[in-house]
Amino acid sequence: MLLHADPAHAFMPYPPVAVSSARTGALADLTFAAKDLFDVAGYPTGGGNPLMLAQSGIKTRTAPAVQALLDAGARFVGKTHTDELAFSMNGRNAHFGTPRNGAAPDRIPGGSSSGSASAVSSGLCDTALGTDTGGSVRAPASHCGLYGIRPTHGRIPLHGALDLSPSFDTCGFFARDVQTFSRVAEVMLGADPAALPARVRLLRPTDAWGLLAPEVVQAHEAAMARIVAALGQATDCTAALESFEPMYWNHRILQGREAWMTDGSFITRHAPPLGPGVAERFAWSSALSDEQVASARAYRARFRAQLAALLGTDGVMVLPTMPDVAPLLSSDESSLDAYRNDAIRLLCIAGLAGFPQLSLPLSTRLGAPLGISLLGPAGSDQSLVALARRIVQG
Amino acid sequence: MLLHADPAHAFMPYPPVAVSSARTGALADLTFAAKDLFDVAGYPTGGGNPLMLAQSGIKTRTAPAVQALLDAGARFVGKTHTDELAFSMNGRNAHFGTPRNGAAPDRIPGGSSSGSASAVSSGLCDTALGTDTGGSVRAPASHCGLYGIRPTHGRIPLHGALDLSPSFDTCGFFARDVQTFSRVAEVMLGADPAALPARVRLLRPTDAWGLLAPEVVQAHEAAMARIVAALGQATDCTAALESFEPMYWNHRILQGREAWMTDGSFITRHAPPLGPGVAERFAWSSALSDEQVASARAYRARFRAQLAALLGTDGVMVLPTMPDVAPLLSSDESSLDAYRNDAIRLLCIAGLAGFPQLSLPLSTRLGAPLGISLLGPAGSDQSLVALARRIVQG
Repeated sequence: MLLHADPAHAFMPYPPVAVSSARTGALADLTFAAKDLFDVAGYPTGGGNPLMLAQSGIKTRTAPAVQALLDAGARFVGKTHTDELAFSMNGRNAHFGTPRNGAAPDRIPGGSSSGSASAVSSGLCDTALGTDTGGSVRAPASHCGLYGIRPTHGRIPLHGALDLSPSFDTCGFFARDVQTFSRVAEVMLGADPAALPARVRLLRPTDAWGLLAPEVVQAHEAAMARIVAALGQATDCTAALESFEPMYWNHRILQGREAWMTDGSFITRHAPPLGPGVAERFAWSSALSDEQVASARAYRARFRAQLAALLGTDGVMVLPTMPDVAPLLSSDESSLDAYRNDAIRLLCIAGLAGFPQLSLPLSTRLGAPLGISLLGPAGSDQSLVALARRIVQG
Repeated sequence: MLLHADPAHAFMPYPPVAVSSARTGALADLTFAAKDLFDVAGYPTGGGNPLMLAQSGIKTRTAPAVQALLDAGARFVGKTHTDELAFSMNGRNAHFGTPRNGAAPDRIPGGSSSGSASAVSSGLCDTALGTDTGGSVRAPASHCGLYGIRPTHGRIPLHGALDLSPSFDTCGFFARDVQTFSRVAEVMLGADPAALPARVRLLRPTDAWGLLAPEVVQAHEAAMARIVAALGQATDCTAALESFEPMYWNHRILQGREAWMTDGSFITRHAPPLGPGVAERFAWSSALSDEQVASARAYRARFRAQLAALLGTDGVMVLPTMPDVAPLLSSDESSLDAYRNDAIRLLCIAGLAGFPQLSLPLSTRLGAPLGISLLGPAGSDQSLVALARRIVQG
């Protein structure tokens, strides 16, 4: 059964099509939604752009990530709104509107997996698939008070989903509680290729925490204490290579070049209307030089090697997911842009490395949720989920 | 069965939902589509605007005009593209693209019932519902080489369809041939409340014909001769009250005011993205004064009385549907605007009066179709269809 009542404006209003799921299975009692980037047989794939939607046609295949949940018995309830072509982080779609943040209705949900976070935080389904290229699962998880993971790059297949920047794109998911999150993770992730040991080495990147306003750091204090109580004392470290400035720019350059390779021909051939910010980012991306891209690639390799060395096989970084609670819905584009640019500095750590990051909804500020994250080495995704359980359930 | 292959880009890509039609009935061998302004249970109603679509939800009722075709056994194949909020005449939707003109693929289809005309002219269905407020059935019928009618205002109910300007809005339909058109008309129109006599008085409005370039008048000569041969000699007359200048402006003022009353709160509350031209027309409409509107209403009443007197109970005006064949797809917005403004002068005759006008695809120019119209007194719709049969079938 598809949800027709959609008080959260979380779903694309597609007519319901029967999507069969296994009658039994580990997730047979759960409902799920999928970001409108994933193909689901019987539905179009809109990608948050009306012309992309109009040209989609009805898909005849279902993306493997969606199929995995169906095979585990979870019932599909609909396709959720996404920021336009997934190339934004606010959850405001100029064409299709803004899904409601179920945990803070006066604030943006965050994006680009906006509708998935909206649906789960509003209780319209138990879990939902999103994608995270530059923060599109982590940002809305933090904003909407959800557990959300950006898995190791390549860990969950993204066939049958619209690309943004393939060397960054990942398939993640949300849940309201750690038990549900763990059950979904079991199905989506399987066993870790590089499981963490029982005793992990907790790391606290002082440069990342230093990006936050003191009142935000303070808002995380109780959560930090809880994490330390569960996992042991944290050692200070530095996350960035040199500083966050080159991290930020090299991340944007690589993502932008790939985004232009993905969507540039659609944009130049059809000149689709693009919302504020999105148009500018694609224009910026189209003008990047090969030299900039080559230099950014080399930087990424150096950064990844440094982070891999720092984490080793037992290191887990604990860092703020986002710079603050979600901005108010009434924020103007320029203040949202500033917030987004701050956020990229935190989010690019896992993004550039391709390492998994799990956001836990353990903090609040101004009555709104605020996520704190665990970031581990490549292939430690399930171990991070297990750590989250230890932190939350004791 | 819904058409999934949509080479003409005529349909909104909604997942197919079973819509039951009568097993037997006068139209049981026909397929039809409906402009995405009409509610069809199981589908959203998008109205050519992505935010309107996103807020639509799934409709639980079917518009009576659609139901009439279902009850006659016609099979529903899908919802067709419309110009944005039906407030345009070109068939180019900035968000969802341009449906293909099946009779002249290098030319615009015309709108706002663009997808319906595209689907029928491309052979994807036998008939299709459109709406005509200021020309939205007549323009695409002329451009796509189809029979198309703007019925007497109020003749076919428009409940369950998105309004534009209610005192102008009508429900019309298209077909490729006069036989099919007559069969659909029989179901949609029933018997005439003011049938024309067997011998009609043909009128040729010299002022309307005088708006055309000589080569366009010439392109209509054979069709005109055919009409005269079937219906008798035409007497010259004048269509406009005074001139086309006040006709044009009063038509735009009344339509604009009503369009703003219909969509103004949606636009001011949600600031949806609006395509080029549409945004400007709504802005212009929002600024109309009550004095302008009152004066235009009085003008419309005078014009309607004059046209009713001219036509009496047996008068049928024969006039060009549009100023020329459809503009090329490569036309820029300003030349399309100029064409549209010329077209309004022809189209506002039936629009201001609320009288029926049937466009017949009898002429061609530059290898593209060109419609010629019969315009009769209020309630003579079916009689016009019968005249079309006499003209075409002899």
